[in-house]
Amino acid sequence: MPFFTPRWLEIGHAKIDIFEAFFGNMGENMEKERKLAVVALGGNALLRDNQRGTIEEQEANVTATLIHMLFLIEEGYDLVITHGNGPQVGSLLMQNDAGEELHGIPQMPLNICVAETQGEIGFMIERMLRNILIEKGMDKAILTLITQVVVDEKDPAFNNPTKRIGRTYSKEQADKMAAEKGWVFKESSKSSEGWRRVVASPMPKEIFNRDTIGRIARRGAIVIAGGGGGIPVYKDKEGKVRTVDAVIDKDFASSLLASRIGADEFYILTDVPFVYRNFGEDNEEKMEFIDNKDGQTMLDSGAFGEGSMAPKVRAALYFINHGGDKSVITEATKLDDRSCGTKITMEYEN
Amino acid sequence: MPFFTPRWLEIGHAKIDIFEAFFGNMGENMEKERKLAVVALGGNALLRDNQRGTIEEQEANVTATLIHMLFLIEEGYDLVITHGNGPQVGSLLMQNDAGEELHGIPQMPLNICVAETQGEIGFMIERMLRNILIEKGMDKAILTLITQVVVDEKDPAFNNPTKRIGRTYSKEQADKMAAEKGWVFKESSKSSEGWRRVVASPMPKEIFNRDTIGRIARRGAIVIAGGGGGIPVYKDKEGKVRTVDAVIDKDFASSLLASRIGADEFYILTDVPFVYRNFGEDNEEKMEFIDNKDGQTMLDSGAFGEGSMAPKVRAALYFINHGGDKSVITEATKLDDRSCGTKITMEYEN
Repeated sequence: MPFFTPRWLEIGHAKIDIFEAFFGNMGENMEKERKLAVVALGGNALLRDNQRGTIEEQEANVTATLIHMLFLIEEGYDLVITHGNGPQVGSLLMQNDAGEELHGIPQMPLNICVAETQGEIGFMIERMLRNILIEKGMDKAILTLITQVVVDEKDPAFNNPTKRIGRTYSKEQADKMAAEKGWVFKESSKSSEGWRRVVASPMPKEIFNRDTIGRIARRGAIVIAGGGGGIPVYKDKEGKVRTVDAVIDKDFASSLLASRIGADEFYILTDVPFVYRNFGEDNEEKMEFIDNKDGQTMLDSGAFGEGSMAPKVRAALYFINHGGDKSVITEATKLDDRSCGTKITMEYEN
Repeated sequence: MPFFTPRWLEIGHAKIDIFEAFFGNMGENMEKERKLAVVALGGNALLRDNQRGTIEEQEANVTATLIHMLFLIEEGYDLVITHGNGPQVGSLLMQNDAGEELHGIPQMPLNICVAETQGEIGFMIERMLRNILIEKGMDKAILTLITQVVVDEKDPAFNNPTKRIGRTYSKEQADKMAAEKGWVFKESSKSSEGWRRVVASPMPKEIFNRDTIGRIARRGAIVIAGGGGGIPVYKDKEGKVRTVDAVIDKDFASSLLASRIGADEFYILTDVPFVYRNFGEDNEEKMEFIDNKDGQTMLDSGAFGEGSMAPKVRAALYFINHGGDKSVITEATKLDDRSCGTKITMEYEN
């Protein structure tokens, strides 16, 4: 790990970097000149709709996505990778439930399941990326960090939980679990199916270890962090860290992380190559560029679907409005195809 | 994170640390003077025998153990924490199996389950430790790293898998799964119960990101890593990283990590305050001190149970024989009680 191993010459009380003394300052200045990108992998990058979710499928999908990220490394970007966890945490919740039903194993709460998916998916991304780099003869450190994300205990989202998670229950089962565990249930989106637990989706407020994540990435290691939007926690009156069962939007948590670590570019990988305004309407329009002002206007007028593109555009705008240079929303396997992707920048740049 | 933020003065091509130039070299030298300890939390530190394994039980156990680790931080040690995952990975395997049986969810392989427990338990340790530090008014960064550990594909252990994992099956079920999945089964230790899958326990050879783990710890952050002995991987002929279903001894992986990062002290936390030689025999003897020479002699003569203390003594000796100053095997909640614990050192030190 050369980036962690400076060599020092000590002269009196001064410490001189021999490498820099001989070869010039390629240290702090180089760090500042290298661009830092955060890339958020969506569910599609990990698991496709028509797949069962075997490990072989997931590893192949991850590899197919990561290959298109190589150009960023080749162009000298420092890199932080975040990812979703929808299908994985869904499976874990179902398995938890089945384990209790068949073997009486105590269920783990949602926050623990999110932590588990960070280990699972982070390991998968780290290993597949390492193998791609080995194949290309590239040498980079890759680290996966378990990431807690702080939400506000008083976030209004907690008053109206909307995120359906885990398996479908009958009305009777749902009522029983609501009484036993305090869970809140809503009818499944296909109401004939039954009832599902719902949890809140509060806004991410802060990310633990953000400075370390940024610093490690700036020293050239690829950092995988913020998986599944982070493990949701809040701080109580004493400042202690408490868990809460909630789902944090992965794109927004990634955007917050990107802005907090001073990233230059923020990529959101999804299953389509462009954002459309008024998608599916007569006046639908493919957006190649969106500036911060138009983006906000379109968001306010409901031009993007709340269940699909609106949160991604909102996350991209947050990044742009908080110091980021450029955000791109594009298809997972089109990251290196510059003819694809909706670019979001400040208005004067267009 | 002040430990990541040196301040530099540039003179020509030389870069001088202002802090050191003015206040003396407290940088590299200070790092060397601070002691680095690796503490391995055993299963008992996470879950007791008579417990069901609820999240509340586990979090309380972790807190009860971590409190006794505080003195190391107060005495200025840098700290890496490793941990076991036996009960947790056992539960995940059962839940995986139940999820397949009830809902047809594809089972994840053992290596993915280990990665999941690293996220789960790492998060738990990180959060509980952060809360203890907050209560004590101490400010330390704490990071959890997902850790892959390299084993040798040709390790003889793969010829004779012995580690029983997951649920118990009938003979018919076991035969069916052996044919379908290539799993190997042995009768349960209580043979009336049925058959269980067995996997190999190969020796850890290398730890990914060891330098980074050491460097981050040396800069004052507490690092949680190497959970469950690490996610077992091997390198194929091309150097690519492949997964394998195996269980790496947590104490030995921790010992390897401790020696690789140049730790000064290595603590193994278990459920008893001392190692006994010939435990349970007429000539049993409580060991307060073991030197490397006597330790090896006793190991060779079978004075420690292979299923209990022998692997821990072996791990401690490896550390001592590879540059470590001191290893201590003690009870999880007695780490700060200097009247407890078997101390293992080089022979001339006694």
